[in-house]
Amino acid sequence: MKKYKFSLWILLILNFINFFSHAQSKVQQWDRFEVKLEYKSQKNNFSEVNISAIFTGKDTTISVQGFYDGNNTFVIRFMPNKMGIWKYNTQSNVSELNNKKGEFECVKAEGSNHGMVKVSEIYNFKYADGKQYFPLGTTAYAWTHMANDVQELTLKTLKNTGFNKIRMGVFPKNYDLVKEEPTLYPYQIKSTKKDSLGKEIKVWDFTQFNPAFFQHLEKRIDELKDLGIEADLIIFHPYDKGRWGFDEMSMEANLQYIKYLTARLSSFRNVWWSMANEYDYVKSKTDADWITLTKAVVKNDPYRHLCSIHGSTGRYFDYWRPEFTHVSIQDEAPVMNYGAAPIVRNIYNKPTIFDEVGYEGNLKHRWGRYSGEEMNHLIWMGLIGGTYVTHGESYMFKDLRDTIFWGKGGEFKGTSWKRIAFIRNILEKANAPIEQADLSRDSKIATTGKGVYFIYFGKDMNETWLFNLPSKNANFEKVKKGNRYKVEIIDTWDMTIKEVPSIFEVGEVNDYRLYDKDLKQVRLPLKPYIALRITKII
Amino acid sequence: MKKYKFSLWILLILNFINFFSHAQSKVQQWDRFEVKLEYKSQKNNFSEVNISAIFTGKDTTISVQGFYDGNNTFVIRFMPNKMGIWKYNTQSNVSELNNKKGEFECVKAEGSNHGMVKVSEIYNFKYADGKQYFPLGTTAYAWTHMANDVQELTLKTLKNTGFNKIRMGVFPKNYDLVKEEPTLYPYQIKSTKKDSLGKEIKVWDFTQFNPAFFQHLEKRIDELKDLGIEADLIIFHPYDKGRWGFDEMSMEANLQYIKYLTARLSSFRNVWWSMANEYDYVKSKTDADWITLTKAVVKNDPYRHLCSIHGSTGRYFDYWRPEFTHVSIQDEAPVMNYGAAPIVRNIYNKPTIFDEVGYEGNLKHRWGRYSGEEMNHLIWMGLIGGTYVTHGESYMFKDLRDTIFWGKGGEFKGTSWKRIAFIRNILEKANAPIEQADLSRDSKIATTGKGVYFIYFGKDMNETWLFNLPSKNANFEKVKKGNRYKVEIIDTWDMTIKEVPSIFEVGEVNDYRLYDKDLKQVRLPLKPYIALRITKII
Repeated sequence: MKKYKFSLWILLILNFINFFSHAQSKVQQWDRFEVKLEYKSQKNNFSEVNISAIFTGKDTTISVQGFYDGNNTFVIRFMPNKMGIWKYNTQSNVSELNNKKGEFECVKAEGSNHGMVKVSEIYNFKYADGKQYFPLGTTAYAWTHMANDVQELTLKTLKNTGFNKIRMGVFPKNYDLVKEEPTLYPYQIKSTKKDSLGKEIKVWDFTQFNPAFFQHLEKRIDELKDLGIEADLIIFHPYDKGRWGFDEMSMEANLQYIKYLTARLSSFRNVWWSMANEYDYVKSKTDADWITLTKAVVKNDPYRHLCSIHGSTGRYFDYWRPEFTHVSIQDEAPVMNYGAAPIVRNIYNKPTIFDEVGYEGNLKHRWGRYSGEEMNHLIWMGLIGGTYVTHGESYMFKDLRDTIFWGKGGEFKGTSWKRIAFIRNILEKANAPIEQADLSRDSKIATTGKGVYFIYFGKDMNETWLFNLPSKNANFEKVKKGNRYKVEIIDTWDMTIKEVPSIFEVGEVNDYRLYDKDLKQVRLPLKPYIALRITKII
Repeated sequence: MKKYKFSLWILLILNFINFFSHAQSKVQQWDRFEVKLEYKSQKNNFSEVNISAIFTGKDTTISVQGFYDGNNTFVIRFMPNKMGIWKYNTQSNVSELNNKKGEFECVKAEGSNHGMVKVSEIYNFKYADGKQYFPLGTTAYAWTHMANDVQELTLKTLKNTGFNKIRMGVFPKNYDLVKEEPTLYPYQIKSTKKDSLGKEIKVWDFTQFNPAFFQHLEKRIDELKDLGIEADLIIFHPYDKGRWGFDEMSMEANLQYIKYLTARLSSFRNVWWSMANEYDYVKSKTDADWITLTKAVVKNDPYRHLCSIHGSTGRYFDYWRPEFTHVSIQDEAPVMNYGAAPIVRNIYNKPTIFDEVGYEGNLKHRWGRYSGEEMNHLIWMGLIGGTYVTHGESYMFKDLRDTIFWGKGGEFKGTSWKRIAFIRNILEKANAPIEQADLSRDSKIATTGKGVYFIYFGKDMNETWLFNLPSKNANFEKVKKGNRYKVEIIDTWDMTIKEVPSIFEVGEVNDYRLYDKDLKQVRLPLKPYIALRITKII
């Protein structure tokens, strides 16, 4: 009895020290506050120990789940969304972890910390601090599972681009051109056995996570955050094919995995949940399963990170369900021709991202052999329709051991990635979402509603353009006689912006459009991929 | 007391005679069986008398509502969906109408009676007897409210066309070019008053329908049925503008109207429910109201007729709701360019009808001035995408008193209507739905999956076409080396079909496609609107 008491004292002291050594007293808004508690047991700390905490701010109470991080350490993470003092109190089925109290001060965000990205203006996104966010993403499904030098190279590559989102999987990938064995696994190995061909197969203990795997993933997500990049985190995918079995775990294991993942990662402000890549190729799960799993993610995420699901080409899930904050689609059809992307947006009334329209590359597969020009063109086709298109690159110059960015990260070898910063600059200067000015009638012109228009001529090559605008200006004030505009010619491929040395003034409405009163024309370069930025002079 | 008994006897005898004079003993499957019961009261027979009946067939029981048809007559209508003996028993809150029994025999459908149109193969339609139904509709919103000779002319016009569906409103229309005062109104007039300009305004008794109005509508719907035309009946519309007030009745009156309309018309096999035209312009109703009203229609319709709702340009309602059997959209964007129509179909997984893409005509409005060629082209653009496009015509040669078919019916004055029978013939010969063969990759080719393909070149003019097919053939068996085909050139505008005097045999798959093994070409007329019908030789 005395011994027991003594141990308890030691533990309490340890916890006390622990608290002060690990808990930060000041945390920026939307940064991460962490409580670490030590507790040694003979239990399965993942499945038999519950731990959570209630955080109470000035006028908000948020309940968050904790998790076991290995090494006798339990962690509770919290992302404060409001400034001021936050107090917490832990709950656990283990008395040593229960009723632990503390507080910290949430201070103003600084530098590049703009908070979580949220849906804004129905079809678009803003950071929590109000800054407009225009998703310009790329894809590297298994980059965190490659050799360490490749991972470091990926980060270095991304640093020198304009990308602000990346699609990436939690689980490793086993696919035609991506065969690398990861060094870390999400679960602990129960045993190994040999298959009929004598190949070693790992038998996982799906009740025991491998904290090192998740710590590594978290490190990479934090590094992306420091680069201003959102991690569009793919929770499940079909690219396993019997190698590890992570695509065919039991529903119970799936739900435990979601609980653990969300407990660990919800406090990372740059995380988005992508329930799956090509969900319909995951043969072990039904549409009903996907809904169950999505609801589990939403339930366990107190901050309501962006959440969607992605299917194979032309496969549209029930994106109207309230769990999905936005539409994440694999389909090139909506951006191959004018006028289709806005239809998708209109149907769902949610932000629409074409998260896979094919890749710039040199593969034999038709999904992986766009020219850089085509990839860049498709991104612009999305933008002019009020939607967003994700970039991807699939160049392979050696063999499957080559680092194809689409799967492995590494270095970009193409040309379209270089245009992303240029596009982002244009969008951020506009500082407002763009949408079709004259929906279903003129699919080449988009408006910000704030006096700025974009026209994208795509593959049409023109020598001149007669200045004219539709009188309809989305739901904003119509164009009026006497309005004056300046015009800039954007070469989306050569990345030049040249101002036209004339001012244009529109006359009366003529058959739904207003022309320059003197029918002045703009001289255009006889080239494809030309856009115009038209700005009202106030 | 004696007197009462005597009256009751008279009534019973009257009912007895009534029964034998009105109830048919043999009725074709999907035809209409009618029970008429006489009952005189001082009540409001529309709102205070309930009458319904249960019809029991061999293994089916169907409950139907009856209605008051004026003249002391209550009517119960029933459409038998199965052959054999059906017995009925009435229920009423009035004892004289309660517990009336009878039976009839449902016999095999004959001639042009194919039954109700239902959804088939997810994206398409079939009659109840299994015959494929390809919707080729036109529009005459207020034709039943015009002078009688115009109505007769409309029927005569439709008889000589290939149309098998028409969009038409229950209520009269008050719109820029449609100002005719109807001779019949759906409600009885309570009183009249003058507005501030001295114009007479009718005050309706929304609790008292005008049976003559509905009898007239029914006569017209039956006449359409005899022409093989489905009545896509628009229940509400916004084209009233304070003239009659049918667009701003109370919700109670709306629900009474739905109850009355469905009781009268559900037994008409060629009725489709269109909850509204341009629902979003009906300012008195919210989206929630539309859902309530749609649920009421579905609840009161024991046969589950096709049901949808139609909005303004680019306005997509929640078509995924189970109440909607198909998608009925106003939007030209999906058929202006290749590849967009299949996206809409994929999103909803329901039959998709673009029920307003603009009209062939000569109006100043841009919605009413397509050439005949353009109208015909848009219909083909829909078909090649696995969807359907409704025709419409808006020629006005005199002034607003002219019979513009779109609003009033009358005669067609354009050119595209002449192509409908030609299209219908092609589709009925195919006798299977067509869909994109290689979704999101090649939007110009559609397959029936039964060895017949259609390619539509649209506005492209070609001199030759190198015989080739995608290896992908929707979800049907892929194209194989050695398959042999014949080719017919369809001039969709000139309405000619010419067989190419060669047989084509495909070689190996070459980059997702199979070419004629000798690279044989098809000589094409250098004209727009050319299609090909490619038929596998078995």
